[in-house]
Amino acid sequence: MPKERGGAKRLPETAITRLSIYRRALERLAAGHTYVSSARLSAITGFTAAQIRRDLAHFGQFGVPGTGYEVRALQMQLSRILGAGRSWRVALVGVGSLGSALLAYRAFQEQGFRVVAAFDNDLVKVGKRWEGIEIEHASRISGLCRELGVEIGVVTVPARAAQEAVSSLVAGGVKAILNFAPHRVEVPEGVRLRSVDLSVEMEALAFHLLHDPPVPRR
Amino acid sequence: MPKERGGAKRLPETAITRLSIYRRALERLAAGHTYVSSARLSAITGFTAAQIRRDLAHFGQFGVPGTGYEVRALQMQLSRILGAGRSWRVALVGVGSLGSALLAYRAFQEQGFRVVAAFDNDLVKVGKRWEGIEIEHASRISGLCRELGVEIGVVTVPARAAQEAVSSLVAGGVKAILNFAPHRVEVPEGVRLRSVDLSVEMEALAFHLLHDPPVPRR
Repeated sequence: MPKERGGAKRLPETAITRLSIYRRALERLAAGHTYVSSARLSAITGFTAAQIRRDLAHFGQFGVPGTGYEVRALQMQLSRILGAGRSWRVALVGVGSLGSALLAYRAFQEQGFRVVAAFDNDLVKVGKRWEGIEIEHASRISGLCRELGVEIGVVTVPARAAQEAVSSLVAGGVKAILNFAPHRVEVPEGVRLRSVDLSVEMEALAFHLLHDPPVPRR
Repeated sequence: MPKERGGAKRLPETAITRLSIYRRALERLAAGHTYVSSARLSAITGFTAAQIRRDLAHFGQFGVPGTGYEVRALQMQLSRILGAGRSWRVALVGVGSLGSALLAYRAFQEQGFRVVAAFDNDLVKVGKRWEGIEIEHASRISGLCRELGVEIGVVTVPARAAQEAVSSLVAGGVKAILNFAPHRVEVPEGVRLRSVDLSVEMEALAFHLLHDPPVPRR
């Protein structure tokens, strides 16, 4: 159930995800196209043309009938809405295999998500450098996040350590958290949490392999 | 929009995800509890008690009023439905930072997702071993997947290479694909695709940081 925000433009969580996908499609189109129709955007993104028109109308963008939307103008507007061009200070909690991969994940940095601190509670890792960042002990999360003005926390710790990691980030003033730990965590009002559970994704695929009927040949 | 499957039990995609989360909650409860109420499951998982009762009733599980569900019985049934205890042959396409992290991701293996092949088109990587798997050239995807009976493909290649990777997996008989590439890919009918887009997750968080009103103090 998408929660409504209190801001002027109440957009469901799923719509924000779509904006991000539209923006990326426009980025690719910008090289060769001046205009793009909602039908074309639909073919690229997989969302219906009606959905796309509805989403963009939220921001006062109405395509010209028969011509569509101006690619550059729309791209710039979506980028502004999504905070592109800005850079965000990110802290990573949990420098295991997934955490180190994310630290090295170039796509994040290209989008302005700059990891400024990394934490772990494994004393073997603490003090080591990884991708130019010195790994700090987990007990320093809240203090350092506040000092460095960390805005986004990425949590890649085991399930049992997830809530403590999240609470420390929140105590350090972090207002947005992406949680990869396979465990439900609580955040206070005013903190945004999104979760990616890779095991659940794999299990859902396995479910289909077990239960989907074979595709009939035509 | 959840697509309905043609099988006897038509479950929306989101319900499958919930089953997986219930199962994990039951696994933890099993140590100390014989019964669990839908209210308790609701507190653990964050889904409403009504939703939980509806989902479980799908599988003929009705809690005893005042007592709840039998933890072990429910856990075993959900495990069977989700294919737990089975092992799945997985191929990984793209051995970059994210791909290598997933290869090493212990949680996957513990759940029975066994990586039996890994592919890359970087000749520097081809022939090297990683986590006991020899990296093969991407041109061998369809042949080797068929030979090894790969059931699930995990795609962690750059956007421009995503469709080709997915098509090769499909050509090799792979029926379930988890795509991490930030690009929409097409699969034919009968192939299940789930996508995880980490950049979109981060952008959604950034959106909130930019647009959410500050939380009022009370």
